[in-house]
Amino acid sequence: MAELWNLGAAAMAAAVREGRATSEALVAACLARIAEREPEVRAWEALEPEAALAEARARDAEPARGPLHGVPVAIKDIIDTADLPTAYGSPIYAGHRPARDADCVARLRAAGAVVLGKTVTTEFATFRPGKTRNPHDTGHTPGGSSSGSAAAVAAGMAPLALGTQTVGSVIRPASFCGVVGFKATRGRLSLDGVKPLAAAFDSLGCFARSVEDVALWLTALEGGVPAPPRAAAPRVALVRTAQWQKAAPETRAAVEAAAARLAGAGAAVEEPALPDDFARLADEQDVIFAAGALRALARERAGHPELLSPQLKEVLARGAAVGAGRLAEAEATAARCRTALAELFDRVDLVLAPAAPGEAPAGLEATGDPLFNRMWTLLLGPCLNLPAGQGPQGLPVGVQLVGALDSDPAFLADAAWAERALGAAT
Amino acid sequence: MAELWNLGAAAMAAAVREGRATSEALVAACLARIAEREPEVRAWEALEPEAALAEARARDAEPARGPLHGVPVAIKDIIDTADLPTAYGSPIYAGHRPARDADCVARLRAAGAVVLGKTVTTEFATFRPGKTRNPHDTGHTPGGSSSGSAAAVAAGMAPLALGTQTVGSVIRPASFCGVVGFKATRGRLSLDGVKPLAAAFDSLGCFARSVEDVALWLTALEGGVPAPPRAAAPRVALVRTAQWQKAAPETRAAVEAAAARLAGAGAAVEEPALPDDFARLADEQDVIFAAGALRALARERAGHPELLSPQLKEVLARGAAVGAGRLAEAEATAARCRTALAELFDRVDLVLAPAAPGEAPAGLEATGDPLFNRMWTLLLGPCLNLPAGQGPQGLPVGVQLVGALDSDPAFLADAAWAERALGAAT
Repeated sequence: MAELWNLGAAAMAAAVREGRATSEALVAACLARIAEREPEVRAWEALEPEAALAEARARDAEPARGPLHGVPVAIKDIIDTADLPTAYGSPIYAGHRPARDADCVARLRAAGAVVLGKTVTTEFATFRPGKTRNPHDTGHTPGGSSSGSAAAVAAGMAPLALGTQTVGSVIRPASFCGVVGFKATRGRLSLDGVKPLAAAFDSLGCFARSVEDVALWLTALEGGVPAPPRAAAPRVALVRTAQWQKAAPETRAAVEAAAARLAGAGAAVEEPALPDDFARLADEQDVIFAAGALRALARERAGHPELLSPQLKEVLARGAAVGAGRLAEAEATAARCRTALAELFDRVDLVLAPAAPGEAPAGLEATGDPLFNRMWTLLLGPCLNLPAGQGPQGLPVGVQLVGALDSDPAFLADAAWAERALGAAT
Repeated sequence: MAELWNLGAAAMAAAVREGRATSEALVAACLARIAEREPEVRAWEALEPEAALAEARARDAEPARGPLHGVPVAIKDIIDTADLPTAYGSPIYAGHRPARDADCVARLRAAGAVVLGKTVTTEFATFRPGKTRNPHDTGHTPGGSSSGSAAAVAAGMAPLALGTQTVGSVIRPASFCGVVGFKATRGRLSLDGVKPLAAAFDSLGCFARSVEDVALWLTALEGGVPAPPRAAAPRVALVRTAQWQKAAPETRAAVEAAAARLAGAGAAVEEPALPDDFARLADEQDVIFAAGALRALARERAGHPELLSPQLKEVLARGAAVGAGRLAEAEATAARCRTALAELFDRVDLVLAPAAPGEAPAGLEATGDPLFNRMWTLLLGPCLNLPAGQGPQGLPVGVQLVGALDSDPAFLADAAWAERALGAAT
């Protein structure tokens, strides 16, 4: 068996189920890995090792609760936990202790998972970075806003971590950190106990080492059993997007190589012509996002303006400048494009697109550009990052898969096929 | 000016804004109306008149917070409030006091609304009725699960009330009680602090006296200003549904009369042929709903089985019997129909369909059949009930409008046109 900390979530669950490892040993292995890597990576906002070990021993002493029995998980600090502080990445909430677990946390615990701790989020899941560094090169950003969750999984500190995406907060850090990242269809999974940012887009997601592990996570949250990877090849649409020229050469090469490999494995790959409106979606997403954030953070803006970052104030000022007509125009464009995308998904199973502009940028003062995430977030369906090699600086590059609205379990089955075809499991 | 309690939300907000009424006077008028009607209607689960009056005086003493400044609102007791108990319709949570307001409640307060109290919900928003009676005939059900919210608005106790819909919990009681009811697109509005039932479908909604008031409510929650009713006639698809023969004569007559009136007012009305799959959607919705409810209520089912109703246990047993293959089949059918519906909304603006089987059934031991709501809930988009006259027993009958996914503000502008054409404002 590989070192315990290096197992994926499904492998850990199997090891516990089959008596090859205790939950305590898994948690201890992750804690040892954290002790080794955390001084450099800084992924954690709150960690209570003794409590996590006690939870693990309790799982070891009882019958299996569910599909994640005994598996350690990390929780983005935008998500409420009753037994750990939850500060939403803001000094306004320093030391805040929610009265109860978020619904998603309660479900993970009900499925047997052991909460290791809370991972760093940017300020209210927006743009001011936390302390986290990219595990592949600590001089580079891990991306955001789910910075700590992406870095923790990439550094082997946890096999599975909760994240959220409102702009590009799962797919971008997953691409930068070289792990599988998944954003569920907007609204499909409960956000009870997750700090709202822009409700029109807020979506739950996770980071893991494989699509199989993501499917197990989805099962733990919503029941059923994971669908097996498809035997038949999915039909794929390569969508370079109107922003293709802004993608770095390594990203363009990764996307084109992925299209070629999928075709080589038997997938029918087409390059559909999408309506011109699609070129505007990134801008339209920002309009709706900024207006929504202004709304969601109105109380914090009124009560503690001095504790908001300049970056966040800039977002909120943009939101305040959005007129009703502009908002309606953005919504109308989005509606037209959602219909066009639904029609595309009548004849294809997966969209293949860039996940991020390129490798993780150098520096820790920003979390990179969510440009390649905005349109897919606006279109609301499931998105996944698959690691796809390295760029010129030796840092990870990813490719993005997108699925039809609310097709999440079937989408993950198709994505698992693609992962195998690309040899992308980490 | 009409009696204060009888004003709609927009009229109340205008009266406060223009100095024609204080918030205190509005709240006092609603409280007086409650004192008069509550012994028969039984809409309220928790009411603290002194606290509501104090809140109203505080609003009167400060500058306008937002578009609902000074307007009294009612909150379905499935939604958390920090200052009022929240029991989710279950003895398991008797006396429960959430630590904070749900996001939607906090936003209403931030928009200036005054919370009057909590309205009766069925058990966990499922099927065991609460104590509420239909204000039009107290021997008949008000419908459910948002029983108290629908009845409170119908009885003039509040101009605006929050509800939620997972199966048919807004549109059905709105139809039975003769008020406007709106279910927003699934996932568009934050459900932080709303007790989850089946996250795949849980949607926020409201009850009001007019579409204008609903649009004001949406604005209070997500910003922007309400779109004016369309000047041009919307294009309408009449969808009788495969269950048409199960609709009572009064419902069929109301739907057909509405189609004729809309056409008479200039709307192009077509009767599209929808794929055969649509006939299965009501069943598919129940499969996904039951499996989701089993998940959401796992803790209550394990911890307090003796406090669950037989009706709820039956739902959960159905959920436990759903195999993964069946669930995947239901999801696949839903996905196909969502695409077909998106294509229909390429050429029409509104779907017109039955809202409920007929008038509110006699008796208080059940809340009526959500048959005509299931498919539209499964298809995730915005739904609205418009009052459309009376049936043979003199009780209200409604018709349902359905819109494209996430088109909610534009949908309400079209619905306001239809409301005018039907003369349906209450």
